[in-house]
Amino acid sequence: MSRPGIRQVAARAGVAVGTVSAYLNHPDRVSAERARRIAEAIDELGFVPSSAGRQLRLGVSSLIGYLSPDVSNPHFSEIAQEVEYRAERLGMTVFFAHSHGDREREDAYLEAFEQRQVRGILVSSFQPIEARLAAMRDRGTPSVLVGRRARDELQPSVSIDDVSGGRQAGEHLIANGCRRLAFVGGPLPVQQVADRLEGVRSAAAAASVDAPEVIEVAERSIAVGRAVGAALAARSAAERPDGVFAANDVLALGLLQALVAGGVAVPGEVALVGYDDNEFAEASLIPLTSVRARHDDFGAAAVDLLFESIEHGASPRADGTAAQRVYEPELIVRESSRRAH
Amino acid sequence: MSRPGIRQVAARAGVAVGTVSAYLNHPDRVSAERARRIAEAIDELGFVPSSAGRQLRLGVSSLIGYLSPDVSNPHFSEIAQEVEYRAERLGMTVFFAHSHGDREREDAYLEAFEQRQVRGILVSSFQPIEARLAAMRDRGTPSVLVGRRARDELQPSVSIDDVSGGRQAGEHLIANGCRRLAFVGGPLPVQQVADRLEGVRSAAAAASVDAPEVIEVAERSIAVGRAVGAALAARSAAERPDGVFAANDVLALGLLQALVAGGVAVPGEVALVGYDDNEFAEASLIPLTSVRARHDDFGAAAVDLLFESIEHGASPRADGTAAQRVYEPELIVRESSRRAH
Repeated sequence: MSRPGIRQVAARAGVAVGTVSAYLNHPDRVSAERARRIAEAIDELGFVPSSAGRQLRLGVSSLIGYLSPDVSNPHFSEIAQEVEYRAERLGMTVFFAHSHGDREREDAYLEAFEQRQVRGILVSSFQPIEARLAAMRDRGTPSVLVGRRARDELQPSVSIDDVSGGRQAGEHLIANGCRRLAFVGGPLPVQQVADRLEGVRSAAAAASVDAPEVIEVAERSIAVGRAVGAALAARSAAERPDGVFAANDVLALGLLQALVAGGVAVPGEVALVGYDDNEFAEASLIPLTSVRARHDDFGAAAVDLLFESIEHGASPRADGTAAQRVYEPELIVRESSRRAH
Repeated sequence: MSRPGIRQVAARAGVAVGTVSAYLNHPDRVSAERARRIAEAIDELGFVPSSAGRQLRLGVSSLIGYLSPDVSNPHFSEIAQEVEYRAERLGMTVFFAHSHGDREREDAYLEAFEQRQVRGILVSSFQPIEARLAAMRDRGTPSVLVGRRARDELQPSVSIDDVSGGRQAGEHLIANGCRRLAFVGGPLPVQQVADRLEGVRSAAAAASVDAPEVIEVAERSIAVGRAVGAALAARSAAERPDGVFAANDVLALGLLQALVAGGVAVPGEVALVGYDDNEFAEASLIPLTSVRARHDDFGAAAVDLLFESIEHGASPRADGTAAQRVYEPELIVRESSRRAH
């Protein structure tokens, strides 16, 4: 008779495995209703959660790596946490390395991971890296691309539909009366950025609103957002966009500060939407509307796909291709874009 | 004839090695004056910076580990970045692991690092971990404790004088007219928290102001700061502190949002000071006064101490003890605490 596991608890409670994991590690992150259902399922099944420590000791030989651009963007640190919780539950430990978006660093760290014989690697990258991952796969190290759909049908990936996210942002701004849209983001060759721009463009076209002004930036940081915000504040009201969609929240937070400091009312004169829905966006004095990837499921799904490849080999689907999960993002509307009109 | 290196550039420019490293990686982070002196020194010496990629390939066998509580607090992600830049310049690559403040996880990850034969480990911990680090040292893996002064004279550490930081925060609030101080932080057994409280207490005592009210919290997060802020906003003005010192910036940002949302003017009715000076504190709509550790030097110093132990063995000082660097923090005054009175 096998002891009930986290999967049985999830099934009984009617929630995702990741939600049970979140409940066990961070009960305050789970809605009261879900927490109640999970607690009931645990009682009914007599489920005994293993201590994290015990699982970790078992898991020392099951090391996985996560290579991400960097963690100064809270979006990545939030995904990192979900990855850790999920991996721990599966008895795996995680080492992190940061590429800072540099292709040479990516290669160096992937090599370091392989040399250290990790069992699999999660990779977030802004650049084409599929060929490198295919070579690693041939040498026996599976990987999952996180945050961008792989352009190699044999490469598993977990991503957000960024075109849809951009479209939702654009539709929302237009519904709130904005007619002069701007998109702040870059570099434009980065797929995630290009997709978000494509989305907001399609929303404008569908509503017969002028195409958004594109303000391309070299880096998606608070400092850059602040510089763009100051430049926008210096424009005359007629020349200024009345709805701004930023490619991520840290850019948006910089924009918000500089616009308000420059005497521009948000959302009154400029409605503002970010992307990622990080916790600083929510905690801002003018809380920021943002497009949210569902982090819980997202990080957990990446680990699950990797675990599958590690345990069962590449496990292609019936048609021979790898699993590529694409999540539909959700617009979280807050004060920065909500206007009466 | 040896080619000039980064140390020669630093000496010629009259700046720290870490500053040259910052200049090479992130020129925008270095003051214009320093950048000019470094650029001149590079010209004069004919210094050719190595590509990060080349150094990284050389450094694949020089792997170090950094175990920190987690990266959702931007304070740690900022230190992590400085550690990476400095380590790269020394030809070392860095793997990160996160303990989430859990002692069992700390042990599990330290063991994982040792098994993977890292050459040394940086450790940020809120708990006594010196005995574990001593045992590792005996087995041949040196470490540097980052963020807290080691209570073992053979253990190298790099830390901030948190008592001084707390005192500066308290003196500043009192100088700005605050007479009913409160400290928000916890758990109180955490040394860094206890030291910051001791500092603000000593400032109050020295100024013959009532001892600060202590609002102990279980976790230093935005969500917890928000809950405390809502409770403070609900008090009558007479019962409410007029000067609040939060043990870190994420707590302070949550406090700020909930106070303002609750109709309490900041800094007018409550002056607010945080700790760490993370970039979100600076970018807040009411920019946050905060106590800053000098990250650049701080992360670089930790790597340098570790490098010394790796290259030259434990290298105790003349009196047989290990190097323990303690940095003096600096109060950065911004709008959240600046009042006319």
